[in-house]
Amino acid sequence: MIKDNVRMRGFQERASVDALLELVKKHSSVKRYEQIEVVDSPGAILAEDIISPVNIPGFDRSAMDGFALKGKETFGADSYNPLSLKVIGEVTPGKQFDEEVRKGEAVRIMTGAPVPKGADAVLMAEYAQQNDDIVDVMQAVAPGKNVGKIGEDIRQGEVIFKKDRKIRAQDAAVMSSVGLQSVKVIARPTVDILITGNEILKPGEKPTGVKIVDSNSVLLRNMIKRDGGVVLNIHYLPDQRELIKNALLESTADIICTSGGASVGVEDFAASLVSELGELLVHGISMRPASPTGFGLIGGKKVFLLPGNPVSAMTAYDFFVRTAIQISAGNNPDWPYRKKTVKLSTKITSQIGRVDYVRVKLENNEASLLSSSGASILSSTSRADGFLITREESEGMAAGESVEIWLYDD
Amino acid sequence: MIKDNVRMRGFQERASVDALLELVKKHSSVKRYEQIEVVDSPGAILAEDIISPVNIPGFDRSAMDGFALKGKETFGADSYNPLSLKVIGEVTPGKQFDEEVRKGEAVRIMTGAPVPKGADAVLMAEYAQQNDDIVDVMQAVAPGKNVGKIGEDIRQGEVIFKKDRKIRAQDAAVMSSVGLQSVKVIARPTVDILITGNEILKPGEKPTGVKIVDSNSVLLRNMIKRDGGVVLNIHYLPDQRELIKNALLESTADIICTSGGASVGVEDFAASLVSELGELLVHGISMRPASPTGFGLIGGKKVFLLPGNPVSAMTAYDFFVRTAIQISAGNNPDWPYRKKTVKLSTKITSQIGRVDYVRVKLENNEASLLSSSGASILSSTSRADGFLITREESEGMAAGESVEIWLYDD
Repeated sequence: MIKDNVRMRGFQERASVDALLELVKKHSSVKRYEQIEVVDSPGAILAEDIISPVNIPGFDRSAMDGFALKGKETFGADSYNPLSLKVIGEVTPGKQFDEEVRKGEAVRIMTGAPVPKGADAVLMAEYAQQNDDIVDVMQAVAPGKNVGKIGEDIRQGEVIFKKDRKIRAQDAAVMSSVGLQSVKVIARPTVDILITGNEILKPGEKPTGVKIVDSNSVLLRNMIKRDGGVVLNIHYLPDQRELIKNALLESTADIICTSGGASVGVEDFAASLVSELGELLVHGISMRPASPTGFGLIGGKKVFLLPGNPVSAMTAYDFFVRTAIQISAGNNPDWPYRKKTVKLSTKITSQIGRVDYVRVKLENNEASLLSSSGASILSSTSRADGFLITREESEGMAAGESVEIWLYDD
Repeated sequence: MIKDNVRMRGFQERASVDALLELVKKHSSVKRYEQIEVVDSPGAILAEDIISPVNIPGFDRSAMDGFALKGKETFGADSYNPLSLKVIGEVTPGKQFDEEVRKGEAVRIMTGAPVPKGADAVLMAEYAQQNDDIVDVMQAVAPGKNVGKIGEDIRQGEVIFKKDRKIRAQDAAVMSSVGLQSVKVIARPTVDILITGNEILKPGEKPTGVKIVDSNSVLLRNMIKRDGGVVLNIHYLPDQRELIKNALLESTADIICTSGGASVGVEDFAASLVSELGELLVHGISMRPASPTGFGLIGGKKVFLLPGNPVSAMTAYDFFVRTAIQISAGNNPDWPYRKKTVKLSTKITSQIGRVDYVRVKLENNEASLLSSSGASILSSTSRADGFLITREESEGMAAGESVEIWLYDD
């Protein structure tokens, strides 16, 4: 555990990015489950095997518009030598035909309608010529032809989906068709966002004087949604210890992200509060930007201390909070960006022992550093086409080197 | 225009998949616009240039925790030869320091706070030693150091985003920071879903007797959402011409998808209604499954006649409705699946002049046909790993051939 001894003195020791990632993963393995509507379930991960309570179809159904008949009777029939059958009625989807089809008889039938008793095949309308109550059969139809048998799609008692499957749109459709209304899935992790700072105005307000409009909550709410989390509350709080303390204590979310107050300034309360109320596991990491990032636990809640600088907040979110949300939601912690291998047109310097998140511009398939890209320059993440990550053991990359970058747009 | 002459007689003429796609694209080019909250704007396409009404930052701000001072004074200072300055106060973010910093003076300052008048640089706290109201400066600091100048992030009057840009999370954050509350974007197309059929129960109900639970609305609502559309209403209607007619007339959506009633059965009213109320442009296409698909216009509304068979409905949606939604939303009509090149382990037969949507299973990087995969077998789309599309000019593909497949899961 880390004592809160950093204020106005700088960080004594910084955790590596990998060490913090391991810690985040370790504390993200416990999952919550929830029962959700099948119609809204695509994208969620099944928390149970799904067994079909019924056969689909639940009755022999016609796969075509045409005539239900006894297949054997039609053997030898063709357009030169049609077979005449008596049409004793018609059956449409959702209705049952009450009589039995006998030798010499047929029933007009529509796609999806139940095949009447006595019939075992359906002749396509294209190969039939109806005149009043007589139909001429111009093609032989084998028994079973154009009939969907009971259970041919899904059998009663069959495991249709296994636990841990990511539900597709068509899976939800299948579950609806067997009569399921709700389904148990891994719950989407909930997140509270705490934006702190006396200088902060809410999004939608106009910046004035020395007040600035918070942008981190805008960034975070959208990235959390992208990664499968649910934002419960966004609090905008002045730098008052008691207010921040209450918000931390009263949160019912799985994850709390604080923004601002994470560093070593006189009004940076977040770290000391996590120490006081729970366990501050990491404070300060070997990363640029986002070095003041912290991570701790209060009760079962994971608390991420994100720096106030927007580029730092974005970087720390994308490395650590994203990982926590994806794993808690039952997904792989993959980057949500497309990877591309390109040539570097400028050199990039880093420090051994530090991971850098470097925004790059892409032109003619060559990546270059952005000219203005401090941690406070949010617009740099809009001007950039993507980013690259320098490895801990790297001193940087030479111009001309081939590198992997992640693209903000896909 | 097509007359409604297909009932119980089959399609006289089928449009090619490409011809229908061209028609869909042509009628999807007209866009609607809407004003939405900036905080919810990521993913939308800007319908206007965004010009910043302010400078960001709006004041010279400190990039570090430390001491604001006159940089020139510190020249020559180091840890062996520190410079002592008088600390005349402290400034934190959101507050203005009223006095002017003079020669021999410094002000304690936090990251993000406005740099006081008279000061032009900030010394990092790590290189300072404060005792009461005296601070020892142990490093020279050039004027401008650690100061974010007015407008260094964004300049007042600057075009920060151009029309037609797809808004990123960080772009929304940037727009919030300059004080914008709402923004004009291309509206997400709205869709009404009309499920018709006397046999239909609603999702959440249990299938019983010859009644079946609709799965197409479940599939469609989720795919529409995936592709950037907004579902307004889902109607479940029996096969009664007047009810379906009213639903078509009363819809206020950009797009109507009907499911069921698209083919040539006695209760397939959708096509004749589109003819009566507007223009039926295509009915019947050279595709398997989904051959009964139709497309028409009622007023400005695009109407897609989707077959009732779930695999057909899914195929027709994914080819045509998806394209309409993506283009109307300002996006490229790209497949929302990952492409993969694999070897075919079974042969696939098709017909020249017809496009086939073939569900495949993937094992050891080899694709094979699913054994049970009729148009009514919805579960085949869950058992499949993806699909391939045979070209119009192709008679099929040989076992061992290298093919491109689209994966349902990414």
